[in-house]
Amino acid sequence: MPDTYTPLRIDPGQGITVLDQTLLPHEERYLSLTTVAEVGEAIRELRVRGAPLLGLTGACAIAIAATERGTDDATLDAAVREIDATRPTAADLGAALRRARDHALTMPAADRAEGLWRHAARVLDERLAEDRALAEHGSQLFEPGSAVLTHCNTGALATGATGTALGVIAAAHARGLVTRCYATETRPLLQGARLTAWELGKLGIAGTLLPDTAATSLLASGNVQAVITGADRIAANGDTANKIGTYGLALAAARHGVPFYIAAPETTVDRDCPDGAAIPIEFRDAAEVGGFGSVRWAPDGLDAYNPAFDVTPAELIAAIVTERGVLRPPYGRTLAAPG
Amino acid sequence: MPDTYTPLRIDPGQGITVLDQTLLPHEERYLSLTTVAEVGEAIRELRVRGAPLLGLTGACAIAIAATERGTDDATLDAAVREIDATRPTAADLGAALRRARDHALTMPAADRAEGLWRHAARVLDERLAEDRALAEHGSQLFEPGSAVLTHCNTGALATGATGTALGVIAAAHARGLVTRCYATETRPLLQGARLTAWELGKLGIAGTLLPDTAATSLLASGNVQAVITGADRIAANGDTANKIGTYGLALAAARHGVPFYIAAPETTVDRDCPDGAAIPIEFRDAAEVGGFGSVRWAPDGLDAYNPAFDVTPAELIAAIVTERGVLRPPYGRTLAAPG
Repeated sequence: MPDTYTPLRIDPGQGITVLDQTLLPHEERYLSLTTVAEVGEAIRELRVRGAPLLGLTGACAIAIAATERGTDDATLDAAVREIDATRPTAADLGAALRRARDHALTMPAADRAEGLWRHAARVLDERLAEDRALAEHGSQLFEPGSAVLTHCNTGALATGATGTALGVIAAAHARGLVTRCYATETRPLLQGARLTAWELGKLGIAGTLLPDTAATSLLASGNVQAVITGADRIAANGDTANKIGTYGLALAAARHGVPFYIAAPETTVDRDCPDGAAIPIEFRDAAEVGGFGSVRWAPDGLDAYNPAFDVTPAELIAAIVTERGVLRPPYGRTLAAPG
Repeated sequence: MPDTYTPLRIDPGQGITVLDQTLLPHEERYLSLTTVAEVGEAIRELRVRGAPLLGLTGACAIAIAATERGTDDATLDAAVREIDATRPTAADLGAALRRARDHALTMPAADRAEGLWRHAARVLDERLAEDRALAEHGSQLFEPGSAVLTHCNTGALATGATGTALGVIAAAHARGLVTRCYATETRPLLQGARLTAWELGKLGIAGTLLPDTAATSLLASGNVQAVITGADRIAANGDTANKIGTYGLALAAARHGVPFYIAAPETTVDRDCPDGAAIPIEFRDAAEVGGFGSVRWAPDGLDAYNPAFDVTPAELIAAIVTERGVLRPPYGRTLAAPG
């Protein structure tokens, strides 16, 4: 029996209630955030994370600023800057903050607070509709009784609604098509072990966790009928940047005839980016390798290779699912239509 | 400047001094073991590990038993059973124990203790000669200035001499051929992060650690000129079982035109095993997944897929290096010659 959870709930005119993701999977604690400072702390400390969920949080943060601090232009601008600085590389957060502020500036100051709460509710509704459409399209990809492999975390915890790849899996599970979900641990940050494994339990989906090293063996075993992951950026030709490790899964899937799918919103498609070689890759701190949190298992001061993303060539991707539908190769043509 | 370390030193007529591998990489502590009980504890607690090193330890354990407890047949048999029970699936350990005991039984009881210490020294000499020959053959595989990727731990800590794949890398480094070694963390037991990273530092080889998920990205980058790993069992056709994750590295290497090599002693070649499908694969405890040691990052009680090994098809292996030389495909023919 599925157990409900809500990564972000809007309390109109007051604030938001968020699930503290840093405590998962061991503790499920909700935090009520009613000030800009509280929201900033929650973002900075990764209590709220995932690009789409950060966007939603940003929209809510400006509504909170208007209620807490006032609605004049300078106050709203300062709130945008303050929240944006908490995660400087999170594009969705900055875009959502500016979109909310710009929306407020079209209104008289007296109407702005209420307008911003309505705007935040609309952003959440958009997320829900988008995730739902994506999940429905994607769930058509599976045969009854399928076991599916996924990577990283792409569920409600990442989007604030029902998720991308994990949302597809949940919809296909609800239809009796997917009967088991294999989840990689996803080193170095272990989003699969910490978050996806927890979400599978809450969703009532039979889950099996595996070390990242075991994925090729699993795909060779014949016990998995499909692989589906999210995406961080999709180039115009279909080459897809996603969490480090995705490319290896796609190679192993191709070797063993298992279809490899991407599930991501239209906003992930970068039509100005011709191919994977043009996608910038973020390299992260060496300290993430050779340990987890405060536990260290490698010698101190070691050099590390720690890219956050890799690029899966379009030729290895059997379909890209967005809220618009199931896109098939050649992606240069099927992605080109406006979203 | 390399810093010396010795995983096992024989103190003839007295006992052995071993490096406690459970404390690595944070502490380098040597233990003097002079009783069968002490040796049994060190094996059971994984202070000494690695199949060839366990074989050497087994040979020493019977010499210790003869010195500590006496040399009659029943005493030696009891020691074989007692030590063998500490790691029931370690084939090298059991074989070495029985070989030492059988050797002792050819001698009068009064000569056995001294004979067993000479036998232990001979086993160590064999290991040194075998590892040295393997390393010399393998080091021919690299162009000057190569960066190499390896997996798991295959150094002195695993064999008691100079190692297999890591011994090859060290020999090629000493000749100026290998200038950097990339080491995967090797989930779930993290032998790469804990042991290989430590050995690279002691050997004075520039090392870079990476999450297992980042290996495909690294091979795609063009910054690695070869991959070399050890082997747990090599079938007659060259299909090779090794630490989980090896097959994925071989697939990624093939995709990017990087040669993939295996380095292992002749004893690893199982000429009675026709191909990879006939190699039994050990599945290990679910508790190794979703955490490390006492640290847990996944929900409790989760199902896990945790095979200890995977099988790399012979067609992905550019060469197999043993103490006999560099063997090339077709392995059905080149492996068939007796070792």
